[in-house]
Amino acid sequence: MTRKAGVAILGSTGSVGTTALRVLARHTDRFRVAALTAFSNGDLLREQVAAFKPAFAGVASNGDCLIEAATRADVDIVLNAVVGAAGLDATLAALECGKRVALANKETLVMAGHLVRHALERGGGQIVPVDSEHSAILQCLAGRRPEDVRRVVLTASGGPFRDWPKEKADRATAEEALRHPTWRMGRKITVDSATLANKALEVIEAHYLFDLQFDQIDIVVHPQSVVHSFVEFVDGSVLAQMGTPNMELPVLYALTHPDRVADAALPPFNPVQHSPLTFEPVRHDAFPALRLGIEAGRAGGAAPAVFNAANEQAVEIFLQGKMTFGEIPRVIATALDRLSAEPSETREDLRSADRAARSLVRETLGC
Amino acid sequence: MTRKAGVAILGSTGSVGTTALRVLARHTDRFRVAALTAFSNGDLLREQVAAFKPAFAGVASNGDCLIEAATRADVDIVLNAVVGAAGLDATLAALECGKRVALANKETLVMAGHLVRHALERGGGQIVPVDSEHSAILQCLAGRRPEDVRRVVLTASGGPFRDWPKEKADRATAEEALRHPTWRMGRKITVDSATLANKALEVIEAHYLFDLQFDQIDIVVHPQSVVHSFVEFVDGSVLAQMGTPNMELPVLYALTHPDRVADAALPPFNPVQHSPLTFEPVRHDAFPALRLGIEAGRAGGAAPAVFNAANEQAVEIFLQGKMTFGEIPRVIATALDRLSAEPSETREDLRSADRAARSLVRETLGC
Repeated sequence: MTRKAGVAILGSTGSVGTTALRVLARHTDRFRVAALTAFSNGDLLREQVAAFKPAFAGVASNGDCLIEAATRADVDIVLNAVVGAAGLDATLAALECGKRVALANKETLVMAGHLVRHALERGGGQIVPVDSEHSAILQCLAGRRPEDVRRVVLTASGGPFRDWPKEKADRATAEEALRHPTWRMGRKITVDSATLANKALEVIEAHYLFDLQFDQIDIVVHPQSVVHSFVEFVDGSVLAQMGTPNMELPVLYALTHPDRVADAALPPFNPVQHSPLTFEPVRHDAFPALRLGIEAGRAGGAAPAVFNAANEQAVEIFLQGKMTFGEIPRVIATALDRLSAEPSETREDLRSADRAARSLVRETLGC
Repeated sequence: MTRKAGVAILGSTGSVGTTALRVLARHTDRFRVAALTAFSNGDLLREQVAAFKPAFAGVASNGDCLIEAATRADVDIVLNAVVGAAGLDATLAALECGKRVALANKETLVMAGHLVRHALERGGGQIVPVDSEHSAILQCLAGRRPEDVRRVVLTASGGPFRDWPKEKADRATAEEALRHPTWRMGRKITVDSATLANKALEVIEAHYLFDLQFDQIDIVVHPQSVVHSFVEFVDGSVLAQMGTPNMELPVLYALTHPDRVADAALPPFNPVQHSPLTFEPVRHDAFPALRLGIEAGRAGGAAPAVFNAANEQAVEIFLQGKMTFGEIPRVIATALDRLSAEPSETREDLRSADRAARSLVRETLGC
């Protein structure tokens, strides 16, 4: 038995962080919780510290605490489950120290994929995705040659408005948008599932994670969320990763990739129970945020950061009941038109584009 | 570019053999047809020789020709698509020379899995399956550690009587049994799909191919034949290999495993076109040949050879219209009861058990 791998969890009191601690509690023979950080829930963090006894714990009201946790010598794997742009610096710092980053922070790759690539090259670290779609792709690709891949197909649940007429969806309320059919997630990401903005973010992430061209990334609507994604190889063969919707598996796999560890708490898969599995084309006309995001990814530069920030700000205002569902893609489009050409070389450039996009959205909506 | 791999096709004029030559004609940059053998169709063999110019060709009215083709120095890969027990000697001879055997001959592993294991150990050869279910499993497993596998799930189309009441299926005619819903195959294997005897043979093959316990091999009915099989790993994750039913892919993969080669003739997979995918439990009561075959596999010794031979003989008589569909499992059960304890150490023992089972079935049915 080799020594236990040290794990730092950035964002340990959130949904992914608490899932990770449930998983780690079952695998104390292989992993050691070395560091925990939380954004604001000090009470829960104290409970976690009492249970897991990490060498380091901190409330991350500033970014230094994240970077300290992510770069410690006793940390081998950094689970980055921080919400928002604050996760970026910690990812870059961990990669530059040669750590494995189990990435649940979308902003890292969406805002700054090119900076992450540089950090990977410099530090020799590794990024392993934690969300179910990219974990599925990684599981299908593990051990294959990159040149064997023809394309990937990300599955999308389609969200609560999957089969609503566009006119009706455009008038939907926050309450309606929060009724996700298959996954229980935070409010912001649930709205992103309804607009399909989340799939645009995932397309951009897949581009960076797996070194794929945008033309090699397709999307299919799969309401049951049982097939987590497909990989098609150059000979036409397709592998899919499947399972009951449950975040514990992708978290565990991100820790153990490319190997696996036995976990009886993760239940056997019964295809009969999940029958039938259905697939539908994406209704791009009804969900224009998806195409806007993919185009931002293709454009590169500041555009993905602008897309992400404009979307976040718009969703926040939508959740406050101050705008309609149909306005979300419209304000994103305005922000992309006005700000895609902003500078994007450095983190500060990207943060500045992020701030500008948020201001512009608030201004556009008079908030 | 490395030198071209030499391929011998044993059974080149049959369904798998002609499929293989279609595939090889598209990949002459990597493969060279080194040897062809046919059982009786000399005209087609002459056409194939004219087109592919192999160094060796032979009509295999006796086994020597197969062994000569399988062991030639200019042959790297032996595609064994011989029907019946005649394929066994060629497989063993090729493995003992260290060749890769792309195996489309079920009898090899069903009759004599333990002899194949010995030949693999002695010669350092390799067996790669050609049928779609085992190819699917191999594709899901390639590059994984054996200890990461919890179980495999073979899919079965369910055949034409999938949803027939047992009483009606038991009285079905040969003509009805030959109407396979998804795959176009030879007559014998089509009847095996109707009785589910083919799945029993595949379970036994999977046991030997992937070193799995019988408890690790499950079956699910999947009428669309789009998911070719599943692998479940110890962490509960499931990979599936999918595609339009088409034998060209498993043939090509058997040649290129673990790599892949681009083949634009193998079409992209559109999940929407195959929606919905459905899964049902196996109706063991209606299709008792399946359980008989699996039990024969578990019993080992001569039992799998007896199961295979009794089934072949019964199907032949069924196709002549001389017995009912429901009698097929009954005569197999009789043969297993009477002959499972026969000697099974050597090839001659196994051939003797095979002959005894065929005689017994003919006798039982008065043919």
